Amino acid sequence: MTVQHMKWWGWGVEGVAFSHDDKPSLAPFVQKVVDVDLNADPRPPMDFAELDVPESRLDEKLQRALTDVLGAEYVVATPLDRVVHAFGKSLRDLLRVRASDLRRIPDVVVYPADEEQIAAVLDAVVAADAVLIPFGGGSNISGSLEAPAGEERQVVSLDLGRLNKVLSIDEESGLARIQAGALGPDLEQQLGEKGWTLGHFPDSFTHSSLGGWIATRSSGMQSDKYGDIADITRALRVVQPGGTLATRAVPVTSTGPSVREMILGSEGRLGIITEATVQVHRKPAERVVLGYFFPDFRRGVAAMRAIAASDAAPSITRISDARETSFSFATRKTSKGVAKLMSSALIAVLRKRGWDLEQMCLSFIGYEGSPEHVTRQRKLVKKIVSDHGGICVGAGPGELYDQKKFDTPYIRDFLLDRGALADVSETSTSWSKLLPLYDKVVERANEAFAQLGVKGWIMCHLSHSYHSGACLYFTFAFKQAEGDPIAQYDVVKSAVQQAFIDADGTLSHHHAVGTEHARWLADDISAPGVQLIQGLVATVDPGRNLNPGKIVS
Amino acid sequence: MTVQHMKWWGWGVEGVAFSHDDKPSLAPFVQKVVDVDLNADPRPPMDFAELDVPESRLDEKLQRALTDVLGAEYVVATPLDRVVHAFGKSLRDLLRVRASDLRRIPDVVVYPADEEQIAAVLDAVVAADAVLIPFGGGSNISGSLEAPAGEERQVVSLDLGRLNKVLSIDEESGLARIQAGALGPDLEQQLGEKGWTLGHFPDSFTHSSLGGWIATRSSGMQSDKYGDIADITRALRVVQPGGTLATRAVPVTSTGPSVREMILGSEGRLGIITEATVQVHRKPAERVVLGYFFPDFRRGVAAMRAIAASDAAPSITRISDARETSFSFATRKTSKGVAKLMSSALIAVLRKRGWDLEQMCLSFIGYEGSPEHVTRQRKLVKKIVSDHGGICVGAGPGELYDQKKFDTPYIRDFLLDRGALADVSETSTSWSKLLPLYDKVVERANEAFAQLGVKGWIMCHLSHSYHSGACLYFTFAFKQAEGDPIAQYDVVKSAVQQAFIDADGTLSHHHAVGTEHARWLADDISAPGVQLIQGLVATVDPGRNLNPGKIVS
Repeated sequence: MTVQHMKWWGWGVEGVAFSHDDKPSLAPFVQKVVDVDLNADPRPPMDFAELDVPESRLDEKLQRALTDVLGAEYVVATPLDRVVHAFGKSLRDLLRVRASDLRRIPDVVVYPADEEQIAAVLDAVVAADAVLIPFGGGSNISGSLEAPAGEERQVVSLDLGRLNKVLSIDEESGLARIQAGALGPDLEQQLGEKGWTLGHFPDSFTHSSLGGWIATRSSGMQSDKYGDIADITRALRVVQPGGTLATRAVPVTSTGPSVREMILGSEGRLGIITEATVQVHRKPAERVVLGYFFPDFRRGVAAMRAIAASDAAPSITRISDARETSFSFATRKTSKGVAKLMSSALIAVLRKRGWDLEQMCLSFIGYEGSPEHVTRQRKLVKKIVSDHGGICVGAGPGELYDQKKFDTPYIRDFLLDRGALADVSETSTSWSKLLPLYDKVVERANEAFAQLGVKGWIMCHLSHSYHSGACLYFTFAFKQAEGDPIAQYDVVKSAVQQAFIDADGTLSHHHAVGTEHARWLADDISAPGVQLIQGLVATVDPGRNLNPGKIVS
Repeated sequence: MTVQHMKWWGWGVEGVAFSHDDKPSLAPFVQKVVDVDLNADPRPPMDFAELDVPESRLDEKLQRALTDVLGAEYVVATPLDRVVHAFGKSLRDLLRVRASDLRRIPDVVVYPADEEQIAAVLDAVVAADAVLIPFGGGSNISGSLEAPAGEERQVVSLDLGRLNKVLSIDEESGLARIQAGALGPDLEQQLGEKGWTLGHFPDSFTHSSLGGWIATRSSGMQSDKYGDIADITRALRVVQPGGTLATRAVPVTSTGPSVREMILGSEGRLGIITEATVQVHRKPAERVVLGYFFPDFRRGVAAMRAIAASDAAPSITRISDARETSFSFATRKTSKGVAKLMSSALIAVLRKRGWDLEQMCLSFIGYEGSPEHVTRQRKLVKKIVSDHGGICVGAGPGELYDQKKFDTPYIRDFLLDRGALADVSETSTSWSKLLPLYDKVVERANEAFAQLGVKGWIMCHLSHSYHSGACLYFTFAFKQAEGDPIAQYDVVKSAVQQAFIDADGTLSHHHAVGTEHARWLADDISAPGVQLIQGLVATVDPGRNLNPGKIVS
């Protein structure tokens, strides 16, 4: 068995954790903004042995059927395996698993080797009227991986980890057939050996899979260039009860309502995605991420919009608000990266320009392609940045951002150990509604903190610029108060999500619906839209065996 | 009543027709390739009065209900209105209407003014258990507009022609709310007055509507830059039985299976599209279409692929095969356009390069944006063209192409009057499969001509380049033999479509499924894919009142 999993109690692999030892500004910053002392003794998670793991309800008949298909080695009902497959990695998930609040965890985890075995597992599950939940990397933060609390039937978690191969590359077409269980590093390594890249780098990259990206409509850091996973995915194979759905790897088709776009975002409710044909690209000759400062968020956002409307086509467009910028500064290591930037000389220059340094915003813009292309894009962007009062601060902070981009999720566990609750919510809306939405979210989050009587913090960056709008990605944190932390989380998370809806945003730009966002779905896509999705689910899965309760009930 | 329609018997408006009087090479060309004499007396269509128009089956109750909603003026059951709304403009449609083979034409045509009236009409239709078929410009060539032959219920054609307004433009976001019945020229004029363009220019532009484009997944000549209609369409409003579906105008969303992408291509089966929010663009500072010659189709296609893989991003990429190139030459007017190009001096140059002029292929590549952007794109493309043995022949033929691009559909009526049957079929596939597909289609079409014992012709151009492949657009023509022309058409059309499927293409790149392509749908998207679409239709329209029989039965 070679399938590796994340920590049962948190993000990433055992032995890797966030530390503030080399970040002297962080403790004072956290003390100030959420009133939490990072130097106090942490409360680490309990030992796994202390967890109260419910007995597996797997019956002999289903166990035998699964073992017949897979062999005993790949039908696993150990407590650790079952707990690891019970949740994703939302704050809600972490709070529950750390509190041994395990609820309806899977009765068994199966590890099929190929599509044929998946079809046989599904047949066995349907025959037993059990529940099947597909599992990729386990990084989901929308509740897409858990069985309904009251589920009386047997629950099978289907781990796709053994389906991790790049099957073939069509070099002439820039297309690769890749198995759905391949994690980001798996597939980039296999593609990279032949000079190709998928170009899909979500924050969860190291612990999320191609199938998971497709099932949740993922977006990556370089999606401005490579497209979101919905753009990248050209063809799909999906095991369903009674047959395997397969679409053709054609660039565009006029074959009625798009079946490909029905599977995208389907979270296991329409079958198990086993394989996709995806667009791949030659590794670019040149790649650079530059840092920029803007005097305030408003002008920075306006610059991103102007870039989107221009002939420039950068691979990354990102700008942090002033609060996220101050957080970035607080995580700097002495005399490295952004620290160097904020030399007294630079500060003097900015003050001379009349900048209020409290309002300053840090931006990253990435460029990929031929050296000529990169040079020209940089020039086009430089003019736009300058027109909006910004300045370029070179490649240093961009390199640092690039190196550290997958480390962010570790911080949440670090904070949780120290009594601070933190999570993220993201949305998208049109350019004209972006700043009003931003203001409303901040206002509502602060109201929520006030309601809880806690010191809280919300910060934001714009990522992913499109012709007509952009993604806003919010991170919030607050000091855990007395009482139920999940109830406290609900107050803040709900306030943020409701603000998205009230301000004409969407419930999620790329984190899916799951159970966490389902109650806003009808507000977002209208009740008739929800009925369409319900109709799809009922068509494929009348017995509600496929990941019931997600997206629509 | 201000809604204008096309000729009942053919393409476009009365008084406009194709003529070969000023094209001296065309008659010898047509004589040679399909053995038809353009100088023989044409057989024009019969008079409308000679048509055998079946009685309307509209009953008094439904008539009263519709009149109550719309007023008598907008409930029309004249023979001409009913015949005009009975068909699209495929060759099959033209052959039938010209032969007075009218079948199950609508019993009444209604012209609602707004969404509210549309909802009331739909309620009345469902209450009467009648059939409702939405009608935009009437340009469809896939049989999407006709009622099933055996339909016993009353048939209502809902003409969206009065919903032709650009409702608002969000200048900051580059988004416009436009009513679904707006025809191409309507909406471009209204947008153009404020300096904007949608950038969607299908061949049918002058007689097709926004709602029709969305309902069939249309593509336009400049889609390489502006995107296909699926990319352009950001939000939709759709009147359904029991409610109105509305999605939000957000750039990207992670709200489960895409409802927006279910409505795209739905051909009226999931409700009546009343309005869309679409991406609009500032009119480009510069726009130019250049002509190029390549020594053969293979090298021309390779150049298009290289352009798609490069940092260049032209607005149009198009290359005709040698046969279509020779057809273009045959339609030239004396001493104009391409005629000038093929000066003896140019011919001498090409011969010196070793070109076989019989294999030569004409290409058009378009550029839009700032003057600098256009200059740079042209330079990037020039290098690629040159690397593939091609040469640029300047803006002359491009201008001519640009002026004449919407005239092509008129030629079919002209040929039909003279005993030649002509139609089109298009597909897309990945780059690696493009030339094998091309070869197979040509081979199968020629087999079909041989089977019929007729002189036939098939020609092709590549349009719409994507990262992983392209659209191939075939035009075929043959001399009508003794017997049923529809049976003859079926032989050729089926051979071409079957070749698409056998060679890993799709049944249509942008002409939809309708009834014409429905029998290949399961081959294309697999039987489980067809079931998903059936499930959607059954969810929205259990009574089969909404354009039954299209896409899936």
